[in-house]
Amino acid sequence: MTLGDPAGVGPELICAAWTTRYGENLPPFAVVGGATILKAAAIRRGLDIPIRSVPDLAAAASVFPEALPVIEGPDCEYRPGEPDKESAQVALASLETGATLALSGAASGVVTGPSDRARMADVGFAYPGQTEFFADRCGIAAGDAVMMLASPQLRTVPVTIHVALAEVPVLLTTELICFRVRIVAQALARDFGIPSPRLAIAALNPHAGENGLMGHEEQQVIAPAIAALQAEGIDVSGPHAADSLFAPRARETYDAAIAMYHDQALIPLKALDFDAGVNVTLGLPIVRTSPDHGTAFGIAGTGTADAGAMIAAIRMAGEIAARRAAA
Amino acid sequence: MTLGDPAGVGPELICAAWTTRYGENLPPFAVVGGATILKAAAIRRGLDIPIRSVPDLAAAASVFPEALPVIEGPDCEYRPGEPDKESAQVALASLETGATLALSGAASGVVTGPSDRARMADVGFAYPGQTEFFADRCGIAAGDAVMMLASPQLRTVPVTIHVALAEVPVLLTTELICFRVRIVAQALARDFGIPSPRLAIAALNPHAGENGLMGHEEQQVIAPAIAALQAEGIDVSGPHAADSLFAPRARETYDAAIAMYHDQALIPLKALDFDAGVNVTLGLPIVRTSPDHGTAFGIAGTGTADAGAMIAAIRMAGEIAARRAAA
Repeated sequence: MTLGDPAGVGPELICAAWTTRYGENLPPFAVVGGATILKAAAIRRGLDIPIRSVPDLAAAASVFPEALPVIEGPDCEYRPGEPDKESAQVALASLETGATLALSGAASGVVTGPSDRARMADVGFAYPGQTEFFADRCGIAAGDAVMMLASPQLRTVPVTIHVALAEVPVLLTTELICFRVRIVAQALARDFGIPSPRLAIAALNPHAGENGLMGHEEQQVIAPAIAALQAEGIDVSGPHAADSLFAPRARETYDAAIAMYHDQALIPLKALDFDAGVNVTLGLPIVRTSPDHGTAFGIAGTGTADAGAMIAAIRMAGEIAARRAAA
Repeated sequence: MTLGDPAGVGPELICAAWTTRYGENLPPFAVVGGATILKAAAIRRGLDIPIRSVPDLAAAASVFPEALPVIEGPDCEYRPGEPDKESAQVALASLETGATLALSGAASGVVTGPSDRARMADVGFAYPGQTEFFADRCGIAAGDAVMMLASPQLRTVPVTIHVALAEVPVLLTTELICFRVRIVAQALARDFGIPSPRLAIAALNPHAGENGLMGHEEQQVIAPAIAALQAEGIDVSGPHAADSLFAPRARETYDAAIAMYHDQALIPLKALDFDAGVNVTLGLPIVRTSPDHGTAFGIAGTGTADAGAMIAAIRMAGEIAARRAAA
């Protein structure tokens, strides 16, 4: 586990997650760096837990039942809600070491704590987000790493992500949709145990364009992608009017929804289940998950942050790693 | 109540709603036309209810406790799932009469059944939707009628509606947002009994544009609207990142969310509560609500359509009419 920004809610949520290791049946994990931060964060959250420094992950596994293991690394004072350059540096160092441990095979996966992209950029982080960082560290193209959001109620993948809404219709191509969907289909089979996943493709325009009355992307871009993917034997349907696609009965008809833009995927996920969303990177040689929330500097140290997404991210990483190991 | 398309789920849902008049505490209502259709629809749904033709709304009120009152008007054979020109003509005639009764003051409001816009256009309906139709019949500009979607969990108003997503950034102006929000604020006070409504304005771009990194509409269009509205004494906040705005805790902080486009408003509404959404037209001199779902031709006559939204639309029309009468 990487710490995330020590001024955010990451450290306290890691401590809270460790206390649920039996009830939630979590796989053993260790934190990369930050023993001082974790100790202070646990106390602020009212958790009286042992935190123990270990030399490596083998030692961490044997310590895990009795104490939260920390692999030595950059550390600093705990200052919840007060991020600065030092806290961003600690977050970045933890992220780098976490990636290295996963890539070497020493760790069977990496769960990243919430950090602040803009603050990490100030201290040298040169990627639009952690998804792109991991793609680069794994030696694959940024586009080959696909962000999926998963909660108990919904799995969804946005085809375009961190771009202005005005750019979405420009960036959306038949090729891009096909490319992303193929990675999703393979990952759901390999990592989630769904051999023939049912994928529902969202429309871009209201009412799925209503036969071209409100936009032509459905006919010109999305439908051809669906036809091509079906010809490859992938179980895709759509384009579905996006407003109905996330309704309770519709959600029962697919294993993942493919959204055309960021908020189309994230709005329903967070509306339904704000505290249990996991961000999982598909298409990587390593396993990487993250709680789908930010640093929440405003409530760090108050003990009110919900650990649900952190717990779900740890459990999902363990499940994916176990499936890969068994394959 | 207008029938909606007789080939859709409207008639059976009206019958189902009538059977809940005591349990759901519904105000008295009458259907405009379609006694033959309603009788057949009730039987197909397994409802043994009396349907009685009445000459006017005064007679309807006294009949309502014992029978579903129908004011004579266009009728036809019931053919669930098989819409045609005749069914569209019946729907249109019912809509026209319903509007006339509400405008004359004979009815204290009108609840419209689901109809198919394209099919009604084929028989002479010249409006983009029913909202614009009612604005015209009321003698006000189309833009002065504002569509709000309301469910037990969320009220939301899209600033742009039935346009391609690519047009949204072009159509969105500070003036348009201010215009819509003023109508919403007035209507929530007058019709919903919320004297100082808290209105949360959504951003257009992911992460609310992240300080211009992903789009400038927040800084150039939305923030100036918020400042202007605040200067007028309206309680508005934002621009809020849209993906977090509909999460459970966020929803507690506002009385209505102002969305920038159709799906931004409709996705969370339908994801949270597909069967209880009401479409209410704000800014009209008359009261008009509608269940927020379509004709559902595919399941008409099967008895599976949920009457929740129809019941909610009737109850809301009654509540708004009562508030206006008491004012």
